[in-house]
Amino acid sequence: MPREEGTKRPCAGCIAVVGATGAVGREVLQLLAARGVSGERVRALASARSEGARVRYGRSDLEVSGLEDGSFAGCALAIFAADAVTARRFAPLAAGAGAVVIDNSSAFRLDPDVPLVVPEVDRRGAIPAPRNIIANPNCTTIILVTALEPLRRAFGIEAIDVATYQAVSGAGLAAIDELLEDTRASLDPPDRPSTEAPRQRVFAEPAAFNVFSHDSPVDPRSGINGEEQKVIDETRKIWGDPSLRVTPTCVRVPVLRAHTEAITVTLASAASEAEVREALARGSGVVVVDDRAANRFPTPRKASGNGPVLVGRVRPDPGEVSDAGGRNRRWCLLACGDQLLKGAALNAVQIAERLGLVPHESPDTVPAGGERIVHLSV
Amino acid sequence: MPREEGTKRPCAGCIAVVGATGAVGREVLQLLAARGVSGERVRALASARSEGARVRYGRSDLEVSGLEDGSFAGCALAIFAADAVTARRFAPLAAGAGAVVIDNSSAFRLDPDVPLVVPEVDRRGAIPAPRNIIANPNCTTIILVTALEPLRRAFGIEAIDVATYQAVSGAGLAAIDELLEDTRASLDPPDRPSTEAPRQRVFAEPAAFNVFSHDSPVDPRSGINGEEQKVIDETRKIWGDPSLRVTPTCVRVPVLRAHTEAITVTLASAASEAEVREALARGSGVVVVDDRAANRFPTPRKASGNGPVLVGRVRPDPGEVSDAGGRNRRWCLLACGDQLLKGAALNAVQIAERLGLVPHESPDTVPAGGERIVHLSV
Repeated sequence: MPREEGTKRPCAGCIAVVGATGAVGREVLQLLAARGVSGERVRALASARSEGARVRYGRSDLEVSGLEDGSFAGCALAIFAADAVTARRFAPLAAGAGAVVIDNSSAFRLDPDVPLVVPEVDRRGAIPAPRNIIANPNCTTIILVTALEPLRRAFGIEAIDVATYQAVSGAGLAAIDELLEDTRASLDPPDRPSTEAPRQRVFAEPAAFNVFSHDSPVDPRSGINGEEQKVIDETRKIWGDPSLRVTPTCVRVPVLRAHTEAITVTLASAASEAEVREALARGSGVVVVDDRAANRFPTPRKASGNGPVLVGRVRPDPGEVSDAGGRNRRWCLLACGDQLLKGAALNAVQIAERLGLVPHESPDTVPAGGERIVHLSV
Repeated sequence: MPREEGTKRPCAGCIAVVGATGAVGREVLQLLAARGVSGERVRALASARSEGARVRYGRSDLEVSGLEDGSFAGCALAIFAADAVTARRFAPLAAGAGAVVIDNSSAFRLDPDVPLVVPEVDRRGAIPAPRNIIANPNCTTIILVTALEPLRRAFGIEAIDVATYQAVSGAGLAAIDELLEDTRASLDPPDRPSTEAPRQRVFAEPAAFNVFSHDSPVDPRSGINGEEQKVIDETRKIWGDPSLRVTPTCVRVPVLRAHTEAITVTLASAASEAEVREALARGSGVVVVDDRAANRFPTPRKASGNGPVLVGRVRPDPGEVSDAGGRNRRWCLLACGDQLLKGAALNAVQIAERLGLVPHESPDTVPAGGERIVHLSV
């Protein structure tokens, strides 16, 4: 598969972006523009009510077209950043029209004929996709798997315990507005109740200065919520290990973007701290931020707007006695990743890069001591 | 030990509150006032710079006196809500003057001659305290141990994995101001940089819309931070189980008060969900908030200002196969507790109640569907 850096129009055919006005769709457009894909080749598609709106594309913008059955004629690639209902209806139409579909929704992730891909894990040049559909995993899963893949390759993984600290923007642009409005109202409560009609709320719990169990539905029998079930099922599929033990607790925090995950991983074979650190340092898509003396570790602010997953607080589980060689099987770490980029849009674009459907770009890097201003508007 | 409810002056001698102007000291004063202790019996003590200031006491207030060697004459009880340096110097003086000292700092917690007490665990009427000093555990530990004590009594506990979501007020009143100021500045960035001298900051990381590893120092060898080490050492001491496996990850979140903890506990003997729920429902100091259909679980907003620890998301670890009787050894749950109340001031006052040094009050209760407004000023 040839690398085509610097070429303005390296790949034939149009690229459709479905859900172009949403939080993830906007990021997909910016990533395509940053890779030198001409705006003339990009079809920004969204629901009929957004038809005619304009969305940013690099330093220019694109007009949004309404999504229709015939939207995909002449497309080589369709990146879906829409809900599962839209994907179920339109992805087969796009695939039938000859486009490779990369779908961000949950619609096809567990379909045995649809590969579920994190490029750092699946390093095959060609990805067999009998339905012409490739699924992008859930954001929490991508960040977890990317952070742990270097350890899986080096030592194998038997079990994962993970508690998440998830940004509200995983629930879309309206959730960002809700957190900001709730925060303003908490800081400066109005003198009297508003007479305006109450907004449709995204979350059942107040978002400002609060923490709450993830807003996905909870299975009445198992007690597991939808986000946790995705982490379990998708991690097992991505790694091809249906008996992997995964114990997730998914929680929202008042953060605008980038998810944090407190992970305890049980390795198949014990490793020393030097071995664990060496594996992480060699890892793809991972940057180690781990300054014990300065108490500087991954944070969502550091991860926001950056491609790699940040990993730190690397330490052996203090509850486990080391073996005679000073090796441990259980390791703790803290990971942060921008769930709109590596957790969604960037992973999709990286799959398209792998397939030669968009030009490659060298991965974003973040200086270990770097700091970015929080993105208050996405 | 007689209960003395309704009596205005049930206990002889004065009650000294050291650190009366701090986040925890203020709560101690309000709890004493709520128990009908006359303000005339209470000495509000703080550092010399607060001398002459007034602090709220019920609907009235008290004048603050500077802490001196002779401050404890005639005191039957001294509740310390100050730092460890102050406690090390003044607690022995208070004990020598005949007061029972209940100390909130870390100074004496691991001293073998000082009991470390959570009243729900240590149900002895008399608590032997050879040095006349009783230690109040760390806030994160108290919430963890209170949530799990019903399961320990019923099934035994072998291991605990816990990731925390800790409120900034655990770092004092200045940390609350810092979070609020950082939040205002993030929402409305100033047009140009301020010319004022920068404030002394509490946290090395920005607090607003962010999550960061706990601000206590990190041990350069083990990688464990001070808060995590407290959780390990204190949980083992409180339960008298020096080999208990405890795996904590302590993290700050932009919450004003009340800590949240995502806990996975490994029981010594397997239990069914009905057995686990029955044990929690019978537990002391615990309220179960666990509505799967409505996705309503413990949150720091619900816990703020309330005495009990809220427990929910009760479910078996999906990574563990149940035994033939449908029983599991690993259980997941989410706990929230007000770290200034049960995590500090209330636990101290409950110890004093147990010793007959302040009148009893029936524990606060929180309606399962209840909701409190976040305390923007503590």
